[in-house]
Amino acid sequence: MTKIGFIGLGIMGGPMAANLVKAGFDVAGYNRSQAKVERFVEAGGTGAATVAEAVRDRDVIITCLPDSPDVEAMALGDDGVFAHAREGALFIDMSTIQPATARKLAEAGQSAGFGVLDAPISGGERGAIEATLSIMVGGEASDVETARPVFEAMGKTIVHVGPAGAGQTVKAANQLICAVNIQAVAEAIVFLEANSVDPTTAINALSGGLAGSAVLERRAPSMVERNFQPGFRAELHDKDLRILTAAARDAGVTIPLGTAAAQLMAALVAQGDGKLDNTALLKLVEQLSGR
Amino acid sequence: MTKIGFIGLGIMGGPMAANLVKAGFDVAGYNRSQAKVERFVEAGGTGAATVAEAVRDRDVIITCLPDSPDVEAMALGDDGVFAHAREGALFIDMSTIQPATARKLAEAGQSAGFGVLDAPISGGERGAIEATLSIMVGGEASDVETARPVFEAMGKTIVHVGPAGAGQTVKAANQLICAVNIQAVAEAIVFLEANSVDPTTAINALSGGLAGSAVLERRAPSMVERNFQPGFRAELHDKDLRILTAAARDAGVTIPLGTAAAQLMAALVAQGDGKLDNTALLKLVEQLSGR
Amino acid sequence: MTKIGFIGLGIMGGPMAANLVKAGFDVAGYNRSQAKVERFVEAGGTGAATVAEAVRDRDVIITCLPDSPDVEAMALGDDGVFAHAREGALFIDMSTIQPATARKLAEAGQSAGFGVLDAPISGGERGAIEATLSIMVGGEASDVETARPVFEAMGKTIVHVGPAGAGQTVKAANQLICAVNIQAVAEAIVFLEANSVDPTTAINALSGGLAGSAVLERRAPSMVERNFQPGFRAELHDKDLRILTAAARDAGVTIPLGTAAAQLMAALVAQGDGKLDNTALLKLVEQLSGR
Amino acid sequence: MTKIGFIGLGIMGGPMAANLVKAGFDVAGYNRSQAKVERFVEAGGTGAATVAEAVRDRDVIITCLPDSPDVEAMALGDDGVFAHAREGALFIDMSTIQPATARKLAEAGQSAGFGVLDAPISGGERGAIEATLSIMVGGEASDVETARPVFEAMGKTIVHVGPAGAGQTVKAANQLICAVNIQAVAEAIVFLEANSVDPTTAINALSGGLAGSAVLERRAPSMVERNFQPGFRAELHDKDLRILTAAARDAGVTIPLGTAAAQLMAALVAQGDGKLDNTALLKLVEQLSGR
Repeated sequence: MTKIGFIGLGIMGGPMAANLVKAGFDVAGYNRSQAKVERFVEAGGTGAATVAEAVRDRDVIITCLPDSPDVEAMALGDDGVFAHAREGALFIDMSTIQPATARKLAEAGQSAGFGVLDAPISGGERGAIEATLSIMVGGEASDVETARPVFEAMGKTIVHVGPAGAGQTVKAANQLICAVNIQAVAEAIVFLEANSVDPTTAINALSGGLAGSAVLERRAPSMVERNFQPGFRAELHDKDLRILTAAARDAGVTIPLGTAAAQLMAALVAQGDGKLDNTALLKLVEQLSGR
Repeated sequence: MTKIGFIGLGIMGGPMAANLVKAGFDVAGYNRSQAKVERFVEAGGTGAATVAEAVRDRDVIITCLPDSPDVEAMALGDDGVFAHAREGALFIDMSTIQPATARKLAEAGQSAGFGVLDAPISGGERGAIEATLSIMVGGEASDVETARPVFEAMGKTIVHVGPAGAGQTVKAANQLICAVNIQAVAEAIVFLEANSVDPTTAINALSGGLAGSAVLERRAPSMVERNFQPGFRAELHDKDLRILTAAARDAGVTIPLGTAAAQLMAALVAQGDGKLDNTALLKLVEQLSGR
Repeated sequence: MTKIGFIGLGIMGGPMAANLVKAGFDVAGYNRSQAKVERFVEAGGTGAATVAEAVRDRDVIITCLPDSPDVEAMALGDDGVFAHAREGALFIDMSTIQPATARKLAEAGQSAGFGVLDAPISGGERGAIEATLSIMVGGEASDVETARPVFEAMGKTIVHVGPAGAGQTVKAANQLICAVNIQAVAEAIVFLEANSVDPTTAINALSGGLAGSAVLERRAPSMVERNFQPGFRAELHDKDLRILTAAARDAGVTIPLGTAAAQLMAALVAQGDGKLDNTALLKLVEQLSGR
Repeated sequence: MTKIGFIGLGIMGGPMAANLVKAGFDVAGYNRSQAKVERFVEAGGTGAATVAEAVRDRDVIITCLPDSPDVEAMALGDDGVFAHAREGALFIDMSTIQPATARKLAEAGQSAGFGVLDAPISGGERGAIEATLSIMVGGEASDVETARPVFEAMGKTIVHVGPAGAGQTVKAANQLICAVNIQAVAEAIVFLEANSVDPTTAINALSGGLAGSAVLERRAPSMVERNFQPGFRAELHDKDLRILTAAARDAGVTIPLGTAAAQLMAALVAQGDGKLDNTALLKLVEQLSGR
C-alpha cells in the first residue's frame, strides 16, 4: 500500500488528507499548528510532529501550502522534504504557486533523485470535502500514472496538461478566465438592473447562447441575491491573480482584461471584503456606479 | 392569416423573411436596394417597391436594419412605418439599437395607436437561415403573445424579458458578456502557448470547471487553429459595443471590462480586421505580446 | 462698430458677453431663461426676447450652449440662427461640442452664406470673468482675423489651430490630457501616502523633472488638502470626455488611458460627486484602495 | 577627504563615479566586468578587483545596480558590502529598486552599524554625464547631510523626501506619472492627426494651459517627428513600472492608469521596441488605431 506524507492540513489540505485515509492509504500528516494535526488524527490519520517524520520512508509526499515561498522553503529547506525523503519518492505540490517556481522545484527534485509533479486544484472547500476536485497536473507521464490512484481519492477530474509547471500555468489561466467572467457577469447584472430589467429573467435568456457560462449558471443567481457567502474567497483569488500577472509579465504576454480584473479584485480586498466570495466584485461595480 | 410587412432584407433580414414565407405567412418585403427584394421574391415573398406598399394594411411590420438612426427614421419619418401603417398594427423592430431609442419608439408608436416590440436577435447568419435564432423581446405581454407565432417561424428561443427597451438592454448585456469572455479566452490561450502548454489539452481541462463557457467550448478550438472565418464579424460586434457603452453611460453604470473590451474590438476593426470573426481578438493579444 | 448677438448667458457665457460689452461692443444677449437676460442688461448689454431679435442684422453671432444637440438645434432650427442672420454674418460657436457637429455646422453655414468658426474655450469660470480664457479656433483664417478683436475681449490666448472642427478637436485633446494627468497625480498621491511619504515634499521633488506639469503644480496642493471646491466641475469634464470618446471612436483612434479616465470620471459623477472639482478623482482612488 | 567605494560602473554609474573623481574625491570603483573598471581608471579613478577591495576602509559606499536582487545580494551577501565595510560607513544605494527592499537594507545596515540611504536618480544618461541628475533621498537627516557633498558632485537637485525607502517610493511615483503622461500625449497626438489637425500647432496651444507638462514641452516635439532615439529606454521604464505595480500591490493601492500604462510599456518591449525611447508608446497607439 502506498505510504503518503501530507504537509499542510488547512482548509483544503485537511479534508484532502482525510479523503486519502478514507480511501485506505497510510497517511502521515504534518502541519505547523499541531491543532490541525490532532484533527487529522481524529479523522484516522497518523500524526507527524516534524517534517522529517512526515516524509521519511514515504512513497508519495504531498504539499498543500499558501504560496510560492512556503512551498520553496518546504521543498528545498535544510529541514525540508528533499532533505528527508527517501530516494525515488514522488513529490506532489498541490498548492497554487508560480509556474516558474514549480519548474525550479521539478529540476531540483529530479537532480536529487525524486519524481516531481505540480498538481494545483480547483473546486473549492466543498470539492475538497466531497473529493470532487479538478486536478491539473504537470510533470512526467509515468509519475502522473503513479499518482493517479492518489489523485482519484481526492478529485473527480484529473488531467495531465503537460510537463513540469504546466499544472500551475493552466491553474493561472483558469483563475484569469474565472475572474474576468465573474466581473463581466457583475457588470451585466448592474447594467440590467439600472435599466429596470429583471436580471433573473435576463440571465435565463442569456444562458442558452454564446454568453452562457458556468459563472452565469452557477454564480449569477446568488449574485442577484447579493449573497456573497464563500465559495471561493476574494483574498485567495487575489493571491492567485498576483501569480497570474507575474507569470504573464515573465512570459511577455499582455493580458489587458486579466490585469484589469486583478486590479478590481485587489481593490475589493483593499476595501475589506477579502473574506467574501469572489463574486462580491458586483459590490465594486455598484459602488463605481453610485448604486 | 397574419399579413406581415418586412423591411430590411439583408444578411439577417433576408433569410428571416424567407422563413416567414416558408411558415405560411403572407409577407411583403422591402429593401432600399431592389436586388434584395428580387431575391426575396424568388424565395416566394411579395416584393414591395416602397415602404408604404410594404406597410399598408399589414397586421405586423418588422424592421431589421443596421443602426438606431436607420430604425428611428424608418419608424418616425414622413414616409415611414407609422405614417402608413393601419391603426392597431404591431410594429416589431428586430435590429440591434439603443435601448433608449427602443423606448422612444414604443412611446411614439403607442401614442399613435400601434403595438410596439423590440426584439433583437442573436445566433448569427446561420441562426437566421436555420430559424434557430434567440429572440429577446421587450414590450407588452399581450403584444408578445400576438407575435409569438411569427417569432417561432424565425427562432428557437423566444424570451419576453421585460417592458419596452428590455430586449435591447438584454442584447447589450449579451454582447458585453460575449466580448469579455472571448477576450479572456484569447488572453488565456496566448498565455498558455507562451508557457509551452498545449492549449487544446488545457481547454479540455478547464471546460468542466467554473471557467467553462460556451465561448470556451464552441469558439476556443477555432481560435487555437487561428481560424477566424465568421461567425459573427468583429465590425458588427464593434457596433453593438458602441450601443452598450453609450447605454451604460446613459444609465450611469461603470463597466470597466466592458469598456476595455470595446476598445480592443474597435482596435481590431481599426487595424482592418473588421470582416474577421470577433474571436480575432486573439490576433490583438498576440500582437501586443510580440508573438 | 461690430454688432454682436450672444446666445447662452450661463456661467461661462454670462461673463463673456459682459466682457464684450465692457470692451465697447454692441451686444444683444439672448437666453432661454429671461432672468439671465435681465442680469445681462444690468451689466450694460441689450436684452433680446427671441433668437431672431438677438441675431437679426448682427455682424457676429456667438453661441455658448451646453451640448452638441443644443448648438445644432440653435444653428439649424426653423427659428434658429441661420434662419434669421443676415447674409455674410460670422457665426462663432464657443460651446464644447462634437468635432463632427462643428464640421457639419461649418458646411451648412458656408452653404447658406455665413462665415463659421468653432472656438471652444478653457480656463474655467474664473477665466471667463477675468477675460483670460484660452480660445482654440477652427475655421478659415480670414474669419479668424475678423473675430480676433472679439476674442481678445474675452481671452488671453487665442490660437488658430486649423480648419473647421479643429478647435473642438484640440479641446477634446486638452480634456483627454487633463483628465489623465489628474488621475495620474491622484494615484501618485495615494501611493505616496500609503507608503508614509509626505506628498507635499514629494510633489516638490517631482515638479522640476519630467513628471512636472501644470496639474502637479497648480492642482496637487489642493488635492493633498482634500479641497475639492471647483474649479472645473467633474460633471462638466465628464460631458467633455463623452465627446472625446465618441470623437475618438468616430476617428478609429484607440485611446486606452483616455477611455479609462473617462470611466473613472463617470464613476465619480455616478457616485454623486459631479459638483466637486474634477480633481476629486482622488476620492475614487482612495475608495478603491480602501483608504 | 571622503573616501568612496563605487560599485556598478555601467551606463549611469560610470559617468557618476567619474564625476566624483572630477570633484576631487578618492574613489575606488568595482564592476563585475573588468573592462568597465579599466575605463574608470582611464577617467582617473582607482580600480578595485573585488568588492572587498572597493569597500574596505571607505567612508561612503555607493551602489548603482540593475535591480532589487542585485542590490540585496551586493549588500547582504557573504562577500558583500556589509561583510567588508568598516563600522560607521555610509551605504548609499542609487539603483532603482523596490521600496520594501530599501527599507529592509536600511534595517539590516543600521543593525550592523552602518548609515544607509536610498537615493535613486532621474535625468537619464545625459544627466549622469553632465552631473545634473535629480536625486530623491530616503533615510536619516544626518546621513543625508553627510552625503550632500557627494550628491552635489553628481546631481543638481537633491531632495530629502523622507525616511528609509522614501527615495524609492518617490522614484516609483515619478515613473508612474511620467509613463501615464507620455501615454496621454501619445493618444492626443494620434487623435489630433487622425482628425487632420496639425499636432505641433495644437501642442503649442495646449502647453500654456492645464494640459501643459514637461512631457508635452520636451518630448512631444520628437514624438510628432517619430524620433524615438533614447532618452530613457522603454525597457528600463518597463522595469521601473514592475517595481511600481508590485509596490502599489504591497501597499494595497489601486492604480488603474498606472497599471494600464505598465501593460502598454510591457507590450512595447514585448514587440521588440525596448531599446527605443519610452515615448515610442506612440507607436503602440498608432498600431492599435490601424495607422
